[in-house]
Amino acid sequence: VMESWSFLDTVESNFRPLVVIELAKGTKEETIEWFTKRIVDKKANGGAQLLIKPLVTENGVENIYLVGASHLRLLLGAETVGLVKECSDNSMRTFTYSSRKTFKHFADDNHNFLTMAECQYIIKHELENLRAKNEKMIPGYPQAKLYPGKSIVRRLLTSGILVQIFPLHDREELKKLRHSWYGRVKVGYQPLDDIRCYFGETIALYFGFLEYFTFALIPMAVIGIPYYVFAWEDYDKYVMFATFNLLWSTVILEVWKRICAILTYRWGTLLMKRQFEEPRPGFHGVLGINPVTGREEPVYSSLKRQLRIYLVSLPFVCLCLYFSLYVMMIYFDLEQWALDYHKENESNFSSLMLYVPSIIYAVVIEIMNRIYRYAAEFLTSWENHRLESSYQNHLILKVLVFNFLNCFASLFYIAFVLFDMKLLRQSLATLLITSQILNQFAESLLPYWLQKRYNRRMKKRMCSQKTDKDLSLAEQVNMEKEMGTYLGTFDDYLELFLQFGYVSLFSCVYPLAAVFAVLNNITEIYSDALKMCRVYKRPFAEPTANIGVWQLAFETMSVISVVTNCILIGMSPQVDALFPDSKMDLVLTVALVEHLLLAVKFIMAFVIPDKPRDIQMKLAKLEFESLEALKQQVRAFQMQL
Amino acid sequence: VMESWSFLDTVESNFRPLVVIELAKGTKEETIEWFTKRIVDKKANGGAQLLIKPLVTENGVENIYLVGASHLRLLLGAETVGLVKECSDNSMRTFTYSSRKTFKHFADDNHNFLTMAECQYIIKHELENLRAKNEKMIPGYPQAKLYPGKSIVRRLLTSGILVQIFPLHDREELKKLRHSWYGRVKVGYQPLDDIRCYFGETIALYFGFLEYFTFALIPMAVIGIPYYVFAWEDYDKYVMFATFNLLWSTVILEVWKRICAILTYRWGTLLMKRQFEEPRPGFHGVLGINPVTGREEPVYSSLKRQLRIYLVSLPFVCLCLYFSLYVMMIYFDLEQWALDYHKENESNFSSLMLYVPSIIYAVVIEIMNRIYRYAAEFLTSWENHRLESSYQNHLILKVLVFNFLNCFASLFYIAFVLFDMKLLRQSLATLLITSQILNQFAESLLPYWLQKRYNRRMKKRMCSQKTDKDLSLAEQVNMEKEMGTYLGTFDDYLELFLQFGYVSLFSCVYPLAAVFAVLNNITEIYSDALKMCRVYKRPFAEPTANIGVWQLAFETMSVISVVTNCILIGMSPQVDALFPDSKMDLVLTVALVEHLLLAVKFIMAFVIPDKPRDIQMKLAKLEFESLEALKQQVRAFQMQL
Repeated sequence: VMESWSFLDTVESNFRPLVVIELAKGTKEETIEWFTKRIVDKKANGGAQLLIKPLVTENGVENIYLVGASHLRLLLGAETVGLVKECSDNSMRTFTYSSRKTFKHFADDNHNFLTMAECQYIIKHELENLRAKNEKMIPGYPQAKLYPGKSIVRRLLTSGILVQIFPLHDREELKKLRHSWYGRVKVGYQPLDDIRCYFGETIALYFGFLEYFTFALIPMAVIGIPYYVFAWEDYDKYVMFATFNLLWSTVILEVWKRICAILTYRWGTLLMKRQFEEPRPGFHGVLGINPVTGREEPVYSSLKRQLRIYLVSLPFVCLCLYFSLYVMMIYFDLEQWALDYHKENESNFSSLMLYVPSIIYAVVIEIMNRIYRYAAEFLTSWENHRLESSYQNHLILKVLVFNFLNCFASLFYIAFVLFDMKLLRQSLATLLITSQILNQFAESLLPYWLQKRYNRRMKKRMCSQKTDKDLSLAEQVNMEKEMGTYLGTFDDYLELFLQFGYVSLFSCVYPLAAVFAVLNNITEIYSDALKMCRVYKRPFAEPTANIGVWQLAFETMSVISVVTNCILIGMSPQVDALFPDSKMDLVLTVALVEHLLLAVKFIMAFVIPDKPRDIQMKLAKLEFESLEALKQQVRAFQMQL
Repeated sequence: VMESWSFLDTVESNFRPLVVIELAKGTKEETIEWFTKRIVDKKANGGAQLLIKPLVTENGVENIYLVGASHLRLLLGAETVGLVKECSDNSMRTFTYSSRKTFKHFADDNHNFLTMAECQYIIKHELENLRAKNEKMIPGYPQAKLYPGKSIVRRLLTSGILVQIFPLHDREELKKLRHSWYGRVKVGYQPLDDIRCYFGETIALYFGFLEYFTFALIPMAVIGIPYYVFAWEDYDKYVMFATFNLLWSTVILEVWKRICAILTYRWGTLLMKRQFEEPRPGFHGVLGINPVTGREEPVYSSLKRQLRIYLVSLPFVCLCLYFSLYVMMIYFDLEQWALDYHKENESNFSSLMLYVPSIIYAVVIEIMNRIYRYAAEFLTSWENHRLESSYQNHLILKVLVFNFLNCFASLFYIAFVLFDMKLLRQSLATLLITSQILNQFAESLLPYWLQKRYNRRMKKRMCSQKTDKDLSLAEQVNMEKEMGTYLGTFDDYLELFLQFGYVSLFSCVYPLAAVFAVLNNITEIYSDALKMCRVYKRPFAEPTANIGVWQLAFETMSVISVVTNCILIGMSPQVDALFPDSKMDLVLTVALVEHLLLAVKFIMAFVIPDKPRDIQMKLAKLEFESLEALKQQVRAFQMQL
């Protein structure tokens, strides 16, 4: 059945609100009128052809709008964003409206063919691609300049007229998801496919990685326990543990790529074509011609950006690193003081005091990491990168370097300058455990508690004794719009990255680290799930095919850990005793082993294919088909001649 | 003007022979008839729609056929193979017949729009894609089985009915190319664009790399000369030389990627889409269903191949490596004997005798490399790889590992077991120079001389006193078909790879190596050019966008050379003297420096972009355009609804 576009003009009777738009209080009437007209206008007139309704609450209209779309509009949008869905023959294909009948579960009246998260992603995409035509400015706001092709929503956001856009929760679905995810005590996998349907691929992939990483740590934890229980200090055993650790960390990172390919193939994102990247919202510059698109848009000199990076950001980062090292030296003074105190008055209290400097230092590290994070965001945003990906890369690089040094500098210093293995073990344990507790508290429990308190107050204010289920749409929207915004998986991956550092860098000194990591990750899964479902606004789904730059970060960490572990083993008295005659031989042997291990690592990374054989075959099949189709086209065209 | 396909049916009056097909003597009439019919048959009937003419010589018909094509047919073929040409607005675009008017230098009567090499490549592609329909066998040869979709030409080749297919030289063009390439003594660049037009991108890229590599070695050679002239044995200077060498070798490999991108963008191959890879000619197996294409074709169990690789090839390679090490030990015995002889009767003759073992060993190495090469080819072919790329990768891996060990094992042994720097220098010099002389002789001069002698005899037999220019087509074909076949750039790259090893692995011991490498490469350019133009049959052009696995091989060599050079510097007595108290400190310092250098290398490789900015912009522009076009298509389709 070919419906006509005019069908979309009338508001459907079963309007389903998907996305909420909140405009600033006191936004001018003419602006609202123009904006809503653009949203519902026909595609041919440059509109988004969506449905929009103001939200009517007890207090009247509050500049909150609900956006939805007809079923047909969503299907056409799915083609525009290039969604990949499963066909009836179980292969994954890019969805097109004309081939819709070949897809699994497709029926003209099946409104669940696209998941709610997909519908919301499509609406977000359509809204963001609502572009200015001949408008020179946003009506009513002469200072908010527009130029042909500029995204209207982005300009509204940067000029503060648009407060936020967020997707609505689906109370029923969320309840189901919560139940299967963390609602009951059970041993088993997370419902990754359900998470993906509800929150999208980026978040599902993070939870997939978290789960995989936890499982991957279990062998290390199991092997690590007897070292603690039996107090093994035997040389052979340490070497065995470290070697296993190093090879294992390479294997798990390679295997993750394969599992990631399996997951994202099933979800369709492995096959999704990259969209052309538009400038990020914060990017500004003078109007000029973009050499790539040939369109008029703001351009910013690459030289100026380089100057900002190298003359301001780089010195600032160096200063921060210096400051972090300075704090570290203070920590060592404290440590010395605690040791002296313990020596002078030996008591239970004084031996407890030995741990205090480490705990204080761990807290300070966490605080510094968080402050630096804001500074890095500010600086990177000031560098004025044109693309979001370039912004992200510069931000991640800045944050990773600082966090790495901030967290591990003291451990490196203790290990390779002070040569104090006892202190290293104690310091490592304190840092790891303290940072885990702080993180769990600051990231999930505290916001959860605040949110709960707020909700209670909200409900009281609304003078209703209803449960969540009975909330009206208006109440739901009002509650959700006040919730915090989930800022992406960055912090979560960063936490895992630092944990991986604690586990692998000095693994042979403190085999128990893996045990703590496993325990932490199990609670982390639950607290992160809680965070996603209860604390934050629902985030927009974001299709992704891999964990991006984090794969590289984890691999780099695993290379560094080969070096540190080899040195640590070389320094242990047991190994020392094996080379009584010549320290030279010891060092040379260690260097040789290190090089061999590195070589093995690189060869393993090269030999293990990144995608499982069946995924490779499926991809090859799709490529073959598209090449054949192209050939057929060329042939058909040539036949016409 | 839309010409009809029937236009192609009539043999054009200006038939231009492009490709020669030589069938075996005594090929059955019915086979010839069937084959030529398939070649000239219409595309709609599954033919190649080319033109074919038997070659008539004084001795009558000799089963040699000349293949050509009409201008229109070649243009359509250019679209099929996906050639990328320059447009009138200087951008590079995939050629399509319908957009032909937008391309630079295109005119309906300009038969030089496609270069001769491109025409020959198109004809080769069309011939290879001539596929069996319902034939179960080649008519007249029941043992030469066919199945639907099997390439006819490949079956004819493997069953020996088709002796060879090769493109004809263009005497006029070749003369011009020879003149500008090596005909006159001049200092300057090679005419890479002309080489590319005549021989195709793979060969032009090899000569481009050879030239670039020679230029890149010049700074190393210039810095190396004073070390020899002034006999500098100073520690600082060696360290400086080695450090410069290491960073320089990283820089030149990274910069090559950029230059390669510039060259291949200009030639259009950077943008060419990868074609679907068909099974290689030698691949055999039982008929089955290919899971990727869904077609019936021979399949061969992957398990069987793995067994062949790990149970036969791997042990064989190990055996060869062992044998090579055994020969090396014999060389050291010889070396010892020569030294003893020199000590007993000191004379000019005896000091000359000191070099004899190295020279003999160098010759033996060369011979072993060549024998092993054949064995490796045989084994890899027996492993029965389905794809040419997989075959090539396994072959290159086998050959590289063996050649590396064969050439450098003795040097490693001298350096790191015997610690004899004087012998290392002498051995390195002898190996390098001898192998260079042998290579130049065996690869170019010997075949050239043989070819010359053969040509003279041919001409005498034909009882003609004509010069090259006046040769009739028949005489030209007869002469060219007897010439050797150029087997690809493998050996040439391998030679450069080993040379790079000699120059970089032990650079701080023998700074003069770079000088010899430069001298060798200058003559190498000339002798390789001579080889291409005079000794071998013209090879088919092969589009390529980079030097492939060789980039990786060179980069690996450069990583290994960091390790060797650091150790060598650490072992030098001058550095030793800097750490009089503790050998430990020396070793630790060397290890630290090595790790820093490796880190710098990886960071440099990461930071230097693989493509220059303007090429990146042009590629982004093309991508943007194609995405826009796709969007327009989707939009246009949606408008119709």
